[in-house]
Amino acid sequence: MRNVLITVEYDGSPFHGWQRQPEAVTVQGVLEEALSLVCGEEIHIDGTGRTDAGVHALCQCATFSGEFGIPADRIPYAVNNVLLSEKSAEGAVRVLTAEDVPECFHARFSASGKTYRYRILNSAEISVFDRNLFYHIKYDLDVCRMRKAAEYIKGTHDFACFQAAGGQERLTTVRTVSDIEINEIKEERGKVIDIEVTGDGFLYNMVRIIAGTLVDAGCGKIEPEKLPEIIISCDRTLAGHTAPPQGLYLKEVYFDK
Amino acid sequence: MRNVLITVEYDGSPFHGWQRQPEAVTVQGVLEEALSLVCGEEIHIDGTGRTDAGVHALCQCATFSGEFGIPADRIPYAVNNVLLSEKSAEGAVRVLTAEDVPECFHARFSASGKTYRYRILNSAEISVFDRNLFYHIKYDLDVCRMRKAAEYIKGTHDFACFQAAGGQERLTTVRTVSDIEINEIKEERGKVIDIEVTGDGFLYNMVRIIAGTLVDAGCGKIEPEKLPEIIISCDRTLAGHTAPPQGLYLKEVYFDK
Repeated sequence: MRNVLITVEYDGSPFHGWQRQPEAVTVQGVLEEALSLVCGEEIHIDGTGRTDAGVHALCQCATFSGEFGIPADRIPYAVNNVLLSEKSAEGAVRVLTAEDVPECFHARFSASGKTYRYRILNSAEISVFDRNLFYHIKYDLDVCRMRKAAEYIKGTHDFACFQAAGGQERLTTVRTVSDIEINEIKEERGKVIDIEVTGDGFLYNMVRIIAGTLVDAGCGKIEPEKLPEIIISCDRTLAGHTAPPQGLYLKEVYFDK
Repeated sequence: MRNVLITVEYDGSPFHGWQRQPEAVTVQGVLEEALSLVCGEEIHIDGTGRTDAGVHALCQCATFSGEFGIPADRIPYAVNNVLLSEKSAEGAVRVLTAEDVPECFHARFSASGKTYRYRILNSAEISVFDRNLFYHIKYDLDVCRMRKAAEYIKGTHDFACFQAAGGQERLTTVRTVSDIEINEIKEERGKVIDIEVTGDGFLYNMVRIIAGTLVDAGCGKIEPEKLPEIIISCDRTLAGHTAPPQGLYLKEVYFDK
């Protein structure tokens, strides 16, 4: 029995999220169909994270097993050819790499951490070409205040205040956010603010609520110094708003080797 | 009777082109519906150019007339709000400006020229986020050869060799290409080659055939020095291939004032 790890990139805009659904176009669904065709048997994949509708991935990971014969390094080319001719997804998902891994390796359970990027376009106008790729904020954000607030979020905390209702029941809401980096980039389209959050695991909508809270700190709605109090409260209503899905990118997955 | 000129930007990917069609989502159709709602009467618009499915506009122009009362400078905001909530287009088209113009002014008949941009991503790989925005060419293009070929295209010629079948019957296929500029830009995504073609008018698919011919010159399939012969022949089969729609952007429209 072979076990293969693939990395995939996708534009989340045309998809109803990662997870396979009977009647909707999803990343998992489209990938499983293409892989089944290429491998000549029914393939089921396990992704590292289930991204919501509209959320993108620069490097999502997934594993799948079977008795297929195609060499791993031929899988990206073969699958991408099928994906390009897939009408419903039109090339919106692409396999970057594939490699054989030990049978015990699992994209979700073997992952030790992830980095998400959240992209904000902070400018008066947003072009139609950027509409699905950024959270557009017209009023000027103070990146110093955002960085100050982010410092309080780093570390190991009970992050219940940053969890949306509707996720899976978890045994604990304690997580470790090992890093938050905020970069300000002047581009032709305007000022881009990239928030990169690295952690060992994330609660439902946690990165989007962190991004929304940092935006609220950046525009003066929340005082950065209030963050410790908000986190200790475990009260979702004290944290900031949930930033929209189109700014979110799963950027990297880490595995213990 | 008022007459209003609007400029619009659109991502052509979700549209079946500019021109209104009974059963398909088109830029003209979506704009006319939103304008009719905002103006409180049925609006018909005339665009400067009819772009094909997948072709974009940085600045398309259109005129429309009626007895509506809304001040011109309020039109962009009002129409864009309607367009953002339009499910079929999802913010893919945006009105940039609106102004009252004399009754005799017409977006198509008053236009004296246009500039199109054709965008090529010349790199080994293309990200899913760029798939609808560039013509992806993997093999290395020689921009010097492309510029040499472009020099022969500039000027007033019978451009029948650069005309696709299926367009409107024209009285003449003589046009003036006043400028072709080719810019090579090193970006993070790879080498971008922007071809900007300015002229007094264009035949059906003319810019895409010019772009395809320049690509064929850039990769050695066509000798730049053959261009005068190809143009004089008026033979479509001697010119290069038709470059795909997603690389094409209507960039600017010129009017005699």
